[in-house]
Amino acid sequence: MGQDNAGILERQRIRRGNFTGPTSGLAPGNVQANLVILPRDLAHDFLRFAQANPKPCPVLAVSEAGSPGFPTLGEDLDIRTDLPLYRVWRDGELVEEPTDVRHVWRDDLVSFAIGCSFSFEEALIEDGIEVRHIACDTNVPMYRTNIPCVPAGVFSGPLVVSMRPLKPRDAIRAVQITSRFPSVHGAPVHLGMPEQIGIRDISKPDYGDAVPIHDDEMPVFWACGVTPQAVIAAVKPAFCITHAPGSMLITDLRNTSLSAL
Amino acid sequence: MGQDNAGILERQRIRRGNFTGPTSGLAPGNVQANLVILPRDLAHDFLRFAQANPKPCPVLAVSEAGSPGFPTLGEDLDIRTDLPLYRVWRDGELVEEPTDVRHVWRDDLVSFAIGCSFSFEEALIEDGIEVRHIACDTNVPMYRTNIPCVPAGVFSGPLVVSMRPLKPRDAIRAVQITSRFPSVHGAPVHLGMPEQIGIRDISKPDYGDAVPIHDDEMPVFWACGVTPQAVIAAVKPAFCITHAPGSMLITDLRNTSLSAL
Repeated sequence: MGQDNAGILERQRIRRGNFTGPTSGLAPGNVQANLVILPRDLAHDFLRFAQANPKPCPVLAVSEAGSPGFPTLGEDLDIRTDLPLYRVWRDGELVEEPTDVRHVWRDDLVSFAIGCSFSFEEALIEDGIEVRHIACDTNVPMYRTNIPCVPAGVFSGPLVVSMRPLKPRDAIRAVQITSRFPSVHGAPVHLGMPEQIGIRDISKPDYGDAVPIHDDEMPVFWACGVTPQAVIAAVKPAFCITHAPGSMLITDLRNTSLSAL
Repeated sequence: MGQDNAGILERQRIRRGNFTGPTSGLAPGNVQANLVILPRDLAHDFLRFAQANPKPCPVLAVSEAGSPGFPTLGEDLDIRTDLPLYRVWRDGELVEEPTDVRHVWRDDLVSFAIGCSFSFEEALIEDGIEVRHIACDTNVPMYRTNIPCVPAGVFSGPLVVSMRPLKPRDAIRAVQITSRFPSVHGAPVHLGMPEQIGIRDISKPDYGDAVPIHDDEMPVFWACGVTPQAVIAAVKPAFCITHAPGSMLITDLRNTSLSAL
């Protein structure tokens, strides 16, 4: 897989505490990932859940229990320090939003890096397709659907989707482009007809911000990495760490290296 | 490319005059093609038109002038006898519908075999997607659009599209499947929103038969091989031969061999 040291430089800057903002736009072309850290006793069921639901939960890497390293994502990577902002959860309650998690680290923690839509959005933009929420400088609108995920152990819940409005011919092109990226959510799961997947009001997303949909556009829906976060929140594990929204794990992988075709 | 002798056997049967019906369902898995035969003085501009408009005019093979053979499509193939039914046109008028064209053959004729949607429809059906006009046992509905083809010499005119109604998730799958077949029209050119491409009444196709569109479906539009036929009809060449509708050229090529991926 492709390597690039812009990722290393950004992680070092973050590790030194010199950057605590959102990671969007940092190390352009490098894969950024969602982070979930769970105790080992939940990790196996969570991995089974991800295996059964690869579109919302595309796992890029799973750490050794207790190890802060993710060698396939970056040799120097320390998962305890290399994100700008974390969220620490106890019994499903957000208890802390620290800039590193060494003080709560435990030997039984397993880390999951989960693919994120930044990678395929970059490919869409490079093809000349406007990504509305980026043009509007807001968060992508996300919706709970009536599509159930395949349950595994304690983990179950509905598929959450992100939405990007596109002209029909751009929607066709977006299917082609994002189909090449199965490890970052892949092809859309739905387009047009939001009521078919249980979305009653497209102007009221369940997460993120609404974006304008022009008359000549249709909403196009992709499986979203918020799905596993919502599923974990419902389980209320005794202990859990995640990235803070927008504050992603920057890896050394190149987005282009994830292209299947 | 894959070869199969079911094509040879069907062509021999047709050549002997033992079959004059539509070719749909003959030699399953073999590529069938639209046929256009033009005098050499128009052939170059027609080929330029096809080159500039590959989605409606995917050329599978072009013959030597005057030669009845198409060796890349079938070693024994004789284009003058191997289709069940032809149409002979003079000055744009249909003058004859013979079962062979040896009596009107000329040394300056160039034959074009143009890919047809039978190939990708087979791939859709194998993936479990219902193709409505096949289920209804009617002709595919086709519409003139407001999308102009790129002109070349005397050839110009609007894109004609075929339409298949699909549920949104099947429409996404159909984009993926038909994208693999660029030489038989490839990915859809449009979906949903027929008014955007100048289709005012989806229940009134310009060619073929209307099919029902269910409430949970959207119309999906592919570039159609009727486009070059309509363009040629408008030019009214002094002399021209085409296949009769539904009476296609059966080749030795396998549909799977056209898959780009």
